[in-house]
Amino acid sequence: MGSSHELARNGHKDVSLQELSDRLAEFAQVRGWEQYHSPRNLLLALVGEVGELSEIFQWKGEVARGLPDWTSDDKEHLEEELSDVLLYLIQLADVCGLDLGQAALTKIVKNARKYPVAEQTAASTN
Amino acid sequence: MGSSHELARNGHKDVSLQELSDRLAEFAQVRGWEQYHSPRNLLLALVGEVGELSEIFQWKGEVARGLPDWTSDDKEHLEEELSDVLLYLIQLADVCGLDLGQAALTKIVKNARKYPVAEQTAASTN
Amino acid sequence: MGSSHELARNGHKDVSLQELSDRLAEFAQVRGWEQYHSPRNLLLALVGEVGELSEIFQWKGEVARGLPDWTSDDKEHLEEELSDVLLYLIQLADVCGLDLGQAALTKIVKNARKYPVAEQTAASTN
Amino acid sequence: MGSSHELARNGHKDVSLQELSDRLAEFAQVRGWEQYHSPRNLLLALVGEVGELSEIFQWKGEVARGLPDWTSDDKEHLEEELSDVLLYLIQLADVCGLDLGQAALTKIVKNARKYPVAEQTAASTN
Repeated sequence: MGSSHELARNGHKDVSLQELSDRLAEFAQVRGWEQYHSPRNLLLALVGEVGELSEIFQWKGEVARGLPDWTSDDKEHLEEELSDVLLYLIQLADVCGLDLGQAALTKIVKNARKYPVAEQTAASTN
Repeated sequence: MGSSHELARNGHKDVSLQELSDRLAEFAQVRGWEQYHSPRNLLLALVGEVGELSEIFQWKGEVARGLPDWTSDDKEHLEEELSDVLLYLIQLADVCGLDLGQAALTKIVKNARKYPVAEQTAASTN
Repeated sequence: MGSSHELARNGHKDVSLQELSDRLAEFAQVRGWEQYHSPRNLLLALVGEVGELSEIFQWKGEVARGLPDWTSDDKEHLEEELSDVLLYLIQLADVCGLDLGQAALTKIVKNARKYPVAEQTAASTN
Repeated sequence: MGSSHELARNGHKDVSLQELSDRLAEFAQVRGWEQYHSPRNLLLALVGEVGELSEIFQWKGEVARGLPDWTSDDKEHLEEELSDVLLYLIQLADVCGLDLGQAALTKIVKNARKYPVAEQTAASTN
């Protein structure tokens, strides 16, 4: 796929949703997996990954921002589960024919209107 | 925020995870919401949005790719719920101090090694 | 249905899974809803309710056992969401033709074998 | 615990939520696990089990009632995951100090009022 090479040299490249979507589409196509990628199959796969993500946090009580006490193995495991959720979410949007990136930008704008910044709060950030 | 303006002119711009992360961080900061954004709070908010996403699909039986029979209102509702899941996922990765975009690329490479393309299948795609 | 009457007089009667299952089957049958109760429809409805349950807990940080600071309205809301999860779970088991009560007892026995009580711990409980 | 013996002779006994709750409380107590059973820990454990339940159904497309094509091993696996969801749900209700059985009966009555049986439909069931 050439992806290892690109990955190796791109360091902290800014990853786009379209790039991930393209790679996932190729991944499924060359393996003949598209036949399994119906919307509800992908949705249930997403729910499965959200379950695995939750299992990481389930017996920990409250967890501090930045995960100060976690081992690098634990962090890597978490990165994998976060990624699995993202990858199924992108594929779900794709098979539904929706543009997830644009939808997310639109939702942020909509949320900004729904929750206007209080003047007092805005002033305190100057 | 200037985001409406950028959004209006960027049409099908390729949206990056970093851009969404930056906007969400600013959104939370100006509203004083960062105090609520602990990892497990964000995780449960994510689970809540996955529930809303599932409710869209729950009584529909199997759904065809491309959602041919859905109204534009139904598709817009779906775009919003997909976005809500994405936005909490990005924020969860952020408060954990993890780079979701790089993690996702790494996971795709790892999956490619775990599920090698069968020679026969690969040949059939030439 | 006569259920209000029975409910009114039974106080803290010990509720069985079979009783709930019977009531739910009658509820769906008289409303003509059985046609919607396929396994995956019920599963996604369950996921939706787990989402609503999570929303109750999402911005609260750690919550103490017994919910000492919750209003009675909040507790009633929680009872409703816990119930919704249970009712879909029972219906999912039913349409799959499985006996949830027996399965649960069997799982407890299996868990007891999987996680034997340490001798030291067992001694300290005498 | 004596539970194997009781289980062996009770065949299709009607299992109550209180019985399951009592067994789970004893199970946690003799293992010293009560310290981990905070409401949000149990909720995340529940979400984890809902994920495992979803994984069983994720690549199957629509599934027929009664699971006609499933092996007995697949059905047993499903029974275990359904049970795991139930057992965490019961424990979550317990640590919150709520009576899940009564709550479920109350919810059925409330749903019956919310969704009255249409006369026409009711007539057609006579």
